[in-house]
Amino acid sequence: MNEVSRSITALREVVCALNQDLPRHGLVVWTAGNVSGRVPGQELMVIKPSGMRFDELTPESMVVTDLNGVVVEGDLSPSSDTGTHAYVYRHMPEVGGIVHTHSTYACAWAARGQAIPCVLTMVADEFGGDVPVGPFALIGNEAIGEGIVATLRESRSPAVLMQNHGPFTIGKDAQSAVKAAVMLEEVAKAVHHAHQLGVPIPIPQSDIDHLSDRYRSVYGQRQE
Amino acid sequence: MNEVSRSITALREVVCALNQDLPRHGLVVWTAGNVSGRVPGQELMVIKPSGMRFDELTPESMVVTDLNGVVVEGDLSPSSDTGTHAYVYRHMPEVGGIVHTHSTYACAWAARGQAIPCVLTMVADEFGGDVPVGPFALIGNEAIGEGIVATLRESRSPAVLMQNHGPFTIGKDAQSAVKAAVMLEEVAKAVHHAHQLGVPIPIPQSDIDHLSDRYRSVYGQRQE
Amino acid sequence: MNEVSRSITALREVVCALNQDLPRHGLVVWTAGNVSGRVPGQELMVIKPSGMRFDELTPESMVVTDLNGVVVEGDLSPSSDTGTHAYVYRHMPEVGGIVHTHSTYACAWAARGQAIPCVLTMVADEFGGDVPVGPFALIGNEAIGEGIVATLRESRSPAVLMQNHGPFTIGKDAQSAVKAAVMLEEVAKAVHHAHQLGVPIPIPQSDIDHLSDRYRSVYGQRQE
Amino acid sequence: MNEVSRSITALREVVCALNQDLPRHGLVVWTAGNVSGRVPGQELMVIKPSGMRFDELTPESMVVTDLNGVVVEGDLSPSSDTGTHAYVYRHMPEVGGIVHTHSTYACAWAARGQAIPCVLTMVADEFGGDVPVGPFALIGNEAIGEGIVATLRESRSPAVLMQNHGPFTIGKDAQSAVKAAVMLEEVAKAVHHAHQLGVPIPIPQSDIDHLSDRYRSVYGQRQE
Repeated sequence: MNEVSRSITALREVVCALNQDLPRHGLVVWTAGNVSGRVPGQELMVIKPSGMRFDELTPESMVVTDLNGVVVEGDLSPSSDTGTHAYVYRHMPEVGGIVHTHSTYACAWAARGQAIPCVLTMVADEFGGDVPVGPFALIGNEAIGEGIVATLRESRSPAVLMQNHGPFTIGKDAQSAVKAAVMLEEVAKAVHHAHQLGVPIPIPQSDIDHLSDRYRSVYGQRQE
Repeated sequence: MNEVSRSITALREVVCALNQDLPRHGLVVWTAGNVSGRVPGQELMVIKPSGMRFDELTPESMVVTDLNGVVVEGDLSPSSDTGTHAYVYRHMPEVGGIVHTHSTYACAWAARGQAIPCVLTMVADEFGGDVPVGPFALIGNEAIGEGIVATLRESRSPAVLMQNHGPFTIGKDAQSAVKAAVMLEEVAKAVHHAHQLGVPIPIPQSDIDHLSDRYRSVYGQRQE
Repeated sequence: MNEVSRSITALREVVCALNQDLPRHGLVVWTAGNVSGRVPGQELMVIKPSGMRFDELTPESMVVTDLNGVVVEGDLSPSSDTGTHAYVYRHMPEVGGIVHTHSTYACAWAARGQAIPCVLTMVADEFGGDVPVGPFALIGNEAIGEGIVATLRESRSPAVLMQNHGPFTIGKDAQSAVKAAVMLEEVAKAVHHAHQLGVPIPIPQSDIDHLSDRYRSVYGQRQE
Repeated sequence: MNEVSRSITALREVVCALNQDLPRHGLVVWTAGNVSGRVPGQELMVIKPSGMRFDELTPESMVVTDLNGVVVEGDLSPSSDTGTHAYVYRHMPEVGGIVHTHSTYACAWAARGQAIPCVLTMVADEFGGDVPVGPFALIGNEAIGEGIVATLRESRSPAVLMQNHGPFTIGKDAQSAVKAAVMLEEVAKAVHHAHQLGVPIPIPQSDIDHLSDRYRSVYGQRQE
């Protein structure tokens, strides 16, 4: 087994486990969501098979495709969102993981086409400002991928709310993208409730910038 | 044991397990809900016994009735909704499974007699448009069954919200009907929240049609 | 061990297990709630000890008091709501179990002093009409008990929302009272959501009466 | 091992377990929250390491710092909120435990800078009146600690909602602070829902005082 094979085998484990985390975090019901990871240094990605329940997934059932979404390894059809994931990997080389869910409160903002305003320090920390909205686009061609990439490029946010559809999140790897999906639903919910009984107090832009910079440089354990 | 007996024994297992899935999916509390399945090729159905807690159910406690709701096998009384299930099976031969719950957000729409508008791609995918409302009807005769069948026949939706009562969902088999019940509560919740802070953006009818068609033909693994 | 002792020992098990069900049903946090049961044929009740976490409870830690709330058996102080439970048992001989929680949505109605209107068949079935509100009363004397009894006597409902406080439910035994507490929070939630996006459709009083009568006579397995 | 070492070892266990209780109580997602405890009689505290997931925590991974936030024991960086905890311990000698979360409904009130009004007996019992709001302050200096201390000193409440940020709670020990965090989110939620369909009925100040006094003197088992 060469190095690429070992890398793919390891990523199958990770991507399978992270897909199974989605229902544990309350982000998906039934089969509605998917996680993928880029094979490091390769024009390949590992993604969930289409329409399978999360509790049926195994590392072996994950599908390997190239970055045009063509299956390279695996007996099952890949997620119906494979073309979208592939588009993002092709156009954002810094992205190593992508998550798509239909998490409840994020979908509520997406149905109205409204960005989630940055009224909590948690939003500034994780998303660096408002969580932006991307255009409505039909599945089946490159329109969703284009909308995601165009929106994320103009924002510090690792999350985009695709109008009338739901959230996509990115990260340096698949786990980071899952973290962003988890934090997104949490802030979507808290800011939703904040608006129900009045108008939240805005955080000044300079403070948002300060929090965003600090979070990226100071928080957590030093990586070595 | 002949083939029909084997078929019934297998369906008892399936219907018991799917009933027990209802509380796991957060769709029911206490005893308030039921799943049934049609015995393939027979004028028979398997349904939950009345007023039993989900954690007490066993395959043996499931009740077999004919399609007039008369008990054929089983020591317990069948669900008090048996007449309704039987009516639907008699009038919709394509239906192989039925679920009834009082899931929270679906009941909130039902209490107002309002259809759930198709403002998320997930609604278009699963329900092919708005989730329709059926008439208010008292339990105990055929009125509920008639209302369900009349409403579903005019819709692509596998779910109907019976006014002041709650949802019924149908499927080609019992598992499909459970899936529809799970997705229904999810969209009932997301669209509810979407309306709380403004007006969701409508999805054009042609896009709803496109999504509905595609979902039925492309999504998931090819069945063989 | 005489018959009364056996009866108390058995009830300690039941009341302990039902108290531990409260957090499982999402009705309480930390120590905020209690279940009691009347010792059949005796002027005695079994109740949760005060301020203990649900996961620390054992049958032995349950407290036996007379119907004036005086401890008869047990090393711990009984629930601070003991006087209220005792008052209800003294004045409502048909009651065999009582539950008090601070469940979230029931408390929301109680804080406004609003009855939960009967706009779902589930409310008609379980509560026979609107769920009534009792007066605000301070803990420490008989005022809460008096308010509960006076309110429940004028209603078919086994649940009362004590203003600015929370729900009390009764039943023929402790399990029935827990069932009422579970169903109460469910209808409190569904009817709350129903009102958030408009006005629910009322159910005619004659239909409420029909549903209430039928539920009490037909639903469930025949008791023998 | 001397007495201080034993005391620290025991507190590492307690603080680790209480941190892990935060996700169980639904108060935090991912790594967003922390519990600390003061080492009895020492100028030391035990706190969660920064940016670690709750399920990865062990007693050994807890960090010991002095009351200026300087690490005394432990290989990991302490929580990024360590300076804030240290400030509170320095200025409130009666405090033995501190909890910080971003629990959803508490954050919703904090985003609007609104105190949670005392409209339920549970609020009077646990918080002795309205739950107060502290000023907006950036992380990284003493501003958050100052805001917490200044706000709590003018209130009976063991909880403060820091504007645009989230709640901090205190207690005589770490478990008491966790209890306050749990009760806070519960009352934040119930009072939120109470306001959504109208205006809650106020509780007279004299009754709030009565409930607050009684709860502190009568509730629970006598400590010996």
